[in-house]
Amino acid sequence: MSTAAAYAIPAADGAFEKITINRRDVGPDDVLIDVKFAGICHSDIHTARNEWGGTNYPCVPGHEIAGIVAAVGSDVRDFKVGDRVGVGCLVGSCGVCAPCLAGEEQYCAKGATWTYNSRVPESAQSNGYTLGGYSTQIVVSESFVVGIPEGIGLDVAAPLLCAGVTLYSPLKHWNAGPGKKVAIIGMGGLGHVGVKIAHALGAEVTVLSQSLRKRDDGLRMGADHYYATADRETFRSLRGQFDLIINTVSANLPIDDYLRLLAVDGTLVILGLPDQPLSVTGRNLAGFRRSLAGSMIGGIAQTQEMLDFCAAHGIGAEIELISADEIDSAYERVVASDVQYRFVIDAATI
Amino acid sequence: MSTAAAYAIPAADGAFEKITINRRDVGPDDVLIDVKFAGICHSDIHTARNEWGGTNYPCVPGHEIAGIVAAVGSDVRDFKVGDRVGVGCLVGSCGVCAPCLAGEEQYCAKGATWTYNSRVPESAQSNGYTLGGYSTQIVVSESFVVGIPEGIGLDVAAPLLCAGVTLYSPLKHWNAGPGKKVAIIGMGGLGHVGVKIAHALGAEVTVLSQSLRKRDDGLRMGADHYYATADRETFRSLRGQFDLIINTVSANLPIDDYLRLLAVDGTLVILGLPDQPLSVTGRNLAGFRRSLAGSMIGGIAQTQEMLDFCAAHGIGAEIELISADEIDSAYERVVASDVQYRFVIDAATI
Repeated sequence: MSTAAAYAIPAADGAFEKITINRRDVGPDDVLIDVKFAGICHSDIHTARNEWGGTNYPCVPGHEIAGIVAAVGSDVRDFKVGDRVGVGCLVGSCGVCAPCLAGEEQYCAKGATWTYNSRVPESAQSNGYTLGGYSTQIVVSESFVVGIPEGIGLDVAAPLLCAGVTLYSPLKHWNAGPGKKVAIIGMGGLGHVGVKIAHALGAEVTVLSQSLRKRDDGLRMGADHYYATADRETFRSLRGQFDLIINTVSANLPIDDYLRLLAVDGTLVILGLPDQPLSVTGRNLAGFRRSLAGSMIGGIAQTQEMLDFCAAHGIGAEIELISADEIDSAYERVVASDVQYRFVIDAATI
Repeated sequence: MSTAAAYAIPAADGAFEKITINRRDVGPDDVLIDVKFAGICHSDIHTARNEWGGTNYPCVPGHEIAGIVAAVGSDVRDFKVGDRVGVGCLVGSCGVCAPCLAGEEQYCAKGATWTYNSRVPESAQSNGYTLGGYSTQIVVSESFVVGIPEGIGLDVAAPLLCAGVTLYSPLKHWNAGPGKKVAIIGMGGLGHVGVKIAHALGAEVTVLSQSLRKRDDGLRMGADHYYATADRETFRSLRGQFDLIINTVSANLPIDDYLRLLAVDGTLVILGLPDQPLSVTGRNLAGFRRSLAGSMIGGIAQTQEMLDFCAAHGIGAEIELISADEIDSAYERVVASDVQYRFVIDAATI
């Protein structure tokens, strides 16, 4: 067992503080990673504040991890000391169910092991639940480690480990590409990466954001069109236009309004989880063979594919780098949608 | 202009009565059909009773039409006098929009012309709106006429023109076939045809019906399994099982309960239009990359494909043949779910 420094929140209404945590010994299949950067995802905040229930404290969030391999187990073949690597939302899965065998570990039938706040044996993490990337070091099975190509800085790569694959996966699954009209709802941490990836995939990209405040950024990142959803005319003029709409917003949107923007055979994919059920009028689906779907991150193989794709296209997240003692104020700003576009913790400050 | 006998309802709360209607002269592209049988679809009842609004009276429903060609226009090449033919829900569309060009006339961007109660020029139907198949004759553009193969009786073929393609289209679109687990919700006019077609396509078929009352029929028609949805244990034991669920029921079902029965990447397709919006919990979609979709009948080419498929597999609807003076009582029995499984009007009694 080794120790690492980490930033933890001691209770749902607490503030982050520096603590020392244990990490397991490096097993034959394990990789010890010196964390260099950790992105702040909205899920971190939901978990830290127990907004989804079931949070174990102290809680160390962080599932957008970029770092350097510090040690490898005896059976590790794909990574060596000094490699640039990443860890996303997943650190384990059953490996034998249909989704796992299909490389979709995020949908593991037995329930995947998440990078933080997932129950694990004490042999994996001495306190009995996983502790995430707001930490100087982490030990992860090599099956859940991905390589970060030289073409991307580790700081701007970190958010790709969750936000990047969360967008890349549905864009690929629902065939975003040349000749396809794709809309991204929301121009935040998820949305801005979606704009970049959808554009790089060759799709015609439209941003649907509350206001036109971030329009210049959106167009610079690759959007072809940018509309304000506060303007009702947006919903009239874009009716029936899109092959694919990706909703990155967790707020309770009037989903029927957005379904009507889909063409025949179009799909609206939700990524966020609103706290109220969606209200869907059947005719908006059946009358146009539309689909309402959902998607959750992506598998490990696809995470690697996404990183390789982003490196090839010069895509990184747009970030604000912070020190670990700024986590609390960063959380406040994320909740207020006041971040351009992702906070990343410099692990050297932990 | 010619005349035909028809059964019409004079008002939303009226009773069907025999009237004489006009049919247009047979134009160069038209086919005059002697109607032999007309199925009774639940949509007929909704329209006759103005439950969807906008019904023009007198209303002659009927969009499950099987008959014999009595005359053809000078430019008609695909049909000749004496041919066995059918007409479904569609008698016209713009022909130039993307869905029309894709052979999906039911999703015509300009709005398809439906077989009854659709506004048309007086040159097409002298009263200004279409009159359907509860009639001795009908004139239809050959583009909207399909051939009924010798292998199917005209009486049991009639319901296939709507119910058949309404099930065949989504089963094909979402790849029902060998190795796929398909559930059909509802064992009525639509559902029983869905069981037959899904079985013939090679899928493993499960019926989800309120009770086990029609279980023997379901198994005889090709279902592998039959469950009662009144039994909560059904929802526990079948969780995560199905690749495709087709909901033929228009009632307001607790759709989340059914979404949970889908496997990863599974799709639930609604065919009926409940009068209340569906309530969908985001996690039930996103946590398993599931889709909630809708589908409406099928295009003309696919309707022909469906009839050829049904003939090759010996599939017809299960029907109760009635005379035209029994339409009112048949409607009552449809509403009470007391029909095995589709009423068909013998047009000789009109």
